[in-house]
Amino acid sequence: LKKILRLNAVTGKYSFKDESEEWKYLGGRSLISTILTQEVNPWAEPLGDMNKIIISLGIIGGTMAPCSGRLSIGGKSPLTGGIKEANVGGTAGVRMAALGLKAIIVEGDSITNNNQLKIVHICKDKVEFYPANDLAEKCNYEVVKKLREKFGKKSAVIVVGPAGIRRYSNSTIAVTDIDGIPSRHAARGGLGAVLASKGVKAIVLADEKADESEEYYDFTTFKKVSFEWMTKLAKSKSVLQNYGTANLILPMNELGCLITRNFSSGSFEKANEISGEKLRKNCIERGGKLGHPCHPGCPIRCSTVYMDENGNHLTSALEYETIGCVGSNCGIGNLDTIAKIDRFCDEYGLDTMEFGDTIGVVMESGLIEFGDEEGVLGLLEEIKKDTVLGKVLGQGTGVTGKVLGVRRIPVVKNQSLSAYDPRGLKGTGVTYITSPMGADHTAGNVLPGRAGYSQPSIHPHESNDQYKLSREIQELTTVCDVVGLCFFVGATLETVDYLSQLLKAKFGKEFTRQQIIDLGRNTIKQEREFNRKAGINEAYDKLPEFFYKEKLAQYNLVFDIPKEETDKVFA
Amino acid sequence: LKKILRLNAVTGKYSFKDESEEWKYLGGRSLISTILTQEVNPWAEPLGDMNKIIISLGIIGGTMAPCSGRLSIGGKSPLTGGIKEANVGGTAGVRMAALGLKAIIVEGDSITNNNQLKIVHICKDKVEFYPANDLAEKCNYEVVKKLREKFGKKSAVIVVGPAGIRRYSNSTIAVTDIDGIPSRHAARGGLGAVLASKGVKAIVLADEKADESEEYYDFTTFKKVSFEWMTKLAKSKSVLQNYGTANLILPMNELGCLITRNFSSGSFEKANEISGEKLRKNCIERGGKLGHPCHPGCPIRCSTVYMDENGNHLTSALEYETIGCVGSNCGIGNLDTIAKIDRFCDEYGLDTMEFGDTIGVVMESGLIEFGDEEGVLGLLEEIKKDTVLGKVLGQGTGVTGKVLGVRRIPVVKNQSLSAYDPRGLKGTGVTYITSPMGADHTAGNVLPGRAGYSQPSIHPHESNDQYKLSREIQELTTVCDVVGLCFFVGATLETVDYLSQLLKAKFGKEFTRQQIIDLGRNTIKQEREFNRKAGINEAYDKLPEFFYKEKLAQYNLVFDIPKEETDKVFA
Repeated sequence: LKKILRLNAVTGKYSFKDESEEWKYLGGRSLISTILTQEVNPWAEPLGDMNKIIISLGIIGGTMAPCSGRLSIGGKSPLTGGIKEANVGGTAGVRMAALGLKAIIVEGDSITNNNQLKIVHICKDKVEFYPANDLAEKCNYEVVKKLREKFGKKSAVIVVGPAGIRRYSNSTIAVTDIDGIPSRHAARGGLGAVLASKGVKAIVLADEKADESEEYYDFTTFKKVSFEWMTKLAKSKSVLQNYGTANLILPMNELGCLITRNFSSGSFEKANEISGEKLRKNCIERGGKLGHPCHPGCPIRCSTVYMDENGNHLTSALEYETIGCVGSNCGIGNLDTIAKIDRFCDEYGLDTMEFGDTIGVVMESGLIEFGDEEGVLGLLEEIKKDTVLGKVLGQGTGVTGKVLGVRRIPVVKNQSLSAYDPRGLKGTGVTYITSPMGADHTAGNVLPGRAGYSQPSIHPHESNDQYKLSREIQELTTVCDVVGLCFFVGATLETVDYLSQLLKAKFGKEFTRQQIIDLGRNTIKQEREFNRKAGINEAYDKLPEFFYKEKLAQYNLVFDIPKEETDKVFA
Repeated sequence: LKKILRLNAVTGKYSFKDESEEWKYLGGRSLISTILTQEVNPWAEPLGDMNKIIISLGIIGGTMAPCSGRLSIGGKSPLTGGIKEANVGGTAGVRMAALGLKAIIVEGDSITNNNQLKIVHICKDKVEFYPANDLAEKCNYEVVKKLREKFGKKSAVIVVGPAGIRRYSNSTIAVTDIDGIPSRHAARGGLGAVLASKGVKAIVLADEKADESEEYYDFTTFKKVSFEWMTKLAKSKSVLQNYGTANLILPMNELGCLITRNFSSGSFEKANEISGEKLRKNCIERGGKLGHPCHPGCPIRCSTVYMDENGNHLTSALEYETIGCVGSNCGIGNLDTIAKIDRFCDEYGLDTMEFGDTIGVVMESGLIEFGDEEGVLGLLEEIKKDTVLGKVLGQGTGVTGKVLGVRRIPVVKNQSLSAYDPRGLKGTGVTYITSPMGADHTAGNVLPGRAGYSQPSIHPHESNDQYKLSREIQELTTVCDVVGLCFFVGATLETVDYLSQLLKAKFGKEFTRQQIIDLGRNTIKQEREFNRKAGINEAYDKLPEFFYKEKLAQYNLVFDIPKEETDKVFA
């Protein structure tokens, strides 16, 4: 059995306990929703003492199963007011597994305790707490550098940037990647502020190995199936390896759903300048990296390392979503500028999607113009200095839009949409609407050609049956978040079948297809129930009005899936 | 039958129609909740084209019944996201009645129509629209002066200040008082922004009389009962006539529930400096007015006219709530400063309660100190200039607290508490929690000594049965808002009995006590149903956590009425 570490950085208390038998088949998103349901009052104020942060591996997280180094981080979100699981790669998942940990539960309340901040150093059998108030306003790169110097370069670091310390609702929890850079972020929903409110600036996972090793019912089969699947993934994902997730820019632009100028258009005239092809060209010319794995051993390797014009490291993990939200959505057709903003967000701990959409509404308000790169750099200064405008931006797109008097505010449950316009990618629109997470493409991205477990794929501009397809892809995606695999392995039946073999080999227990799908379905159900009690009911399952009314240029699309249908998704 | 005027200032269309038979027994708050239920999608964005503003007299509004000149203004609130009725005195109610109007329904959408603004001039049989974009940023006193010059001094003016035009969620709709000053405000919930979003800067009610006169079943009795009740009220309200609503400052301070320094104490060391006694002294010495009626013929005359040190008019209607929220709650023990802030709010169209609490959280954040009068004047400048900080303040206490990273934010359903600390006045605390309006003392203020229709009065520090008492006082208060009488006539059985006589005399129809109470009860039910569909369910029926945890000094009180009980109030 793996261990559950429960800690309170303010009091310095902690305990290691074996996970219960029931928790063996919970992990990641389902362990988070179970713990929150059992331990956190749904009315709890997100930054109050009743909320908790849960960091959890999936059911087979950190094993040799492909892409199993992902980590789920959850709590009640200060952005949405509902349940939140944010999924992150990097090295922390693998280190947690090595330490024999299934989950870390962070409790406590720093705010009524002099806002004290700690570094939490987690070893295999003890936890150390170091005062860290002096690091409060330090940025992520610097903090990580210091901590790796102090605790060793093979430690993994989970860190809260200044955004979280300042209680911005748009604040991330960053995780170090294989280069020791805090480029991976549990980005959505402001969990950085929650972890900071518990008095934690950073968690360092020691470079140690647990005394007990991972148990398997049939290790040979587990290894064999993992290897087979891994080989298959490594071969089939060459587009991601060559162009990163930015490979989607041109196809999405073509489809008319690349968010542009605060969702006023679905195609961007400078799409070529921010495309995967351009990213690849810059990487090759400047000595960046393509096919970079986000965690050790990942066969998909979708990530990138991006250099500036002089060949110096500028940022790591420059993704489609960042490029869309910060780039086309702001009328910015310059990959170097986007990369600079990405680096800034990595430093301060800001979700680039939320932040890009926030800049979009600032531009819509007229405070700065669309495409005004200097203007955006000015906004970064506001955040640096934590001015009132900086604080407003830090609260995310909903608050910023409201404060600036903007009517077209692209949020669902107060979380900003990612880089797909729901009018041009309607299945993902249904996901935005119905996911307990708020607008979130990672909850179930219905890209062209994707099928569910029973639903065939549907053209993204079609309306019929998109709600059924979104439901199935959300369920399958949640399965990945529960078992602990990156959903890039595929939200597909093939994945379900591989998982059936792996779970059998791991636990000696049969899982039917339906039982595996239910791992996802039941989690969503539990999350929605938590949300309902927290006050987020079906009334919040909708897009902003303009998506139903304003025609998206190029294909003249509105979002026309009726509420009766989206209400059916998880009814 | 009275007329219903429906108008669209953007298109210039309007229609007068007789009210339906069913609407005869609806008025004020119940007519608003009925129209919103029938005509406005609960998901509607408050500033979108689907929302409406309804201005309604009560069932016997604008008659000779005492205090019947009140007006209800309603719509979906941009502050709470729920249904909103804001009640206001002044001369508009009486003029509406004279014009034969029961209600005005304002529709339309200015925002997607070049933000055009109009003056709407309502005569007995026609409506005129005048362009008013040049008046957008003009303050209320100036606009009213111009309109009264143009349309006659006996016209009544309903006006939106710069706050509403700028879409501040804390924006009022002001109404001229008997001196022609826009001192009366439908203050709560940001309805100014909604009316502005319909393209209306002001509505002028012409000094005309409808061709048909008010119908009565038995005019002699109506007159006789009204006169009897009026005489009784005139005699029994001498405290209000001599000290205004500010008479409550010292008793509430004594009771430990005068909000002080962002609800961190329930008594204020400078209470004497802001008391009703001090107000009276200043009024007498400087030539102000006490016993000022808010609308023509009111026998209670609770209002005041306040002069500055040189005897010049500074502000009208300086009320307990303003003095508490802007004064003690901000550590300001200077009535002249409070009066200046009140005047500022009257000019810009800001709810003084919301604004006072907003300043309180600004002070809690440390941006300025408690008691810093110069600092507050600086904040007024920010609003004048509509800076980013000004815009934040304009969004109210909830947004301001969030942006500034404050945890102790005194709001329910995002509306700020008025000047009673719920720990020291627990029945009103129940009202804050359970009213569909958000924290609102006018929804049912359980002051010491007040009884319901079946519940005896309870000491405000006691917890037992306060939920029952709050329910009854909320129902009785809502009855007042439905029939169109100021609730200062008393949320009592005596009022019910007078109403029974008056309704009989007016309509020839018997109303039992229960039927009259049901006028209130059913309205609240309908409002809560609208809210539920709008997404505001029981999860929102709670105070901020600190009221349950932090002991209020002096009497060491927490708010200890369990959620199970407050959930029972309207279950």
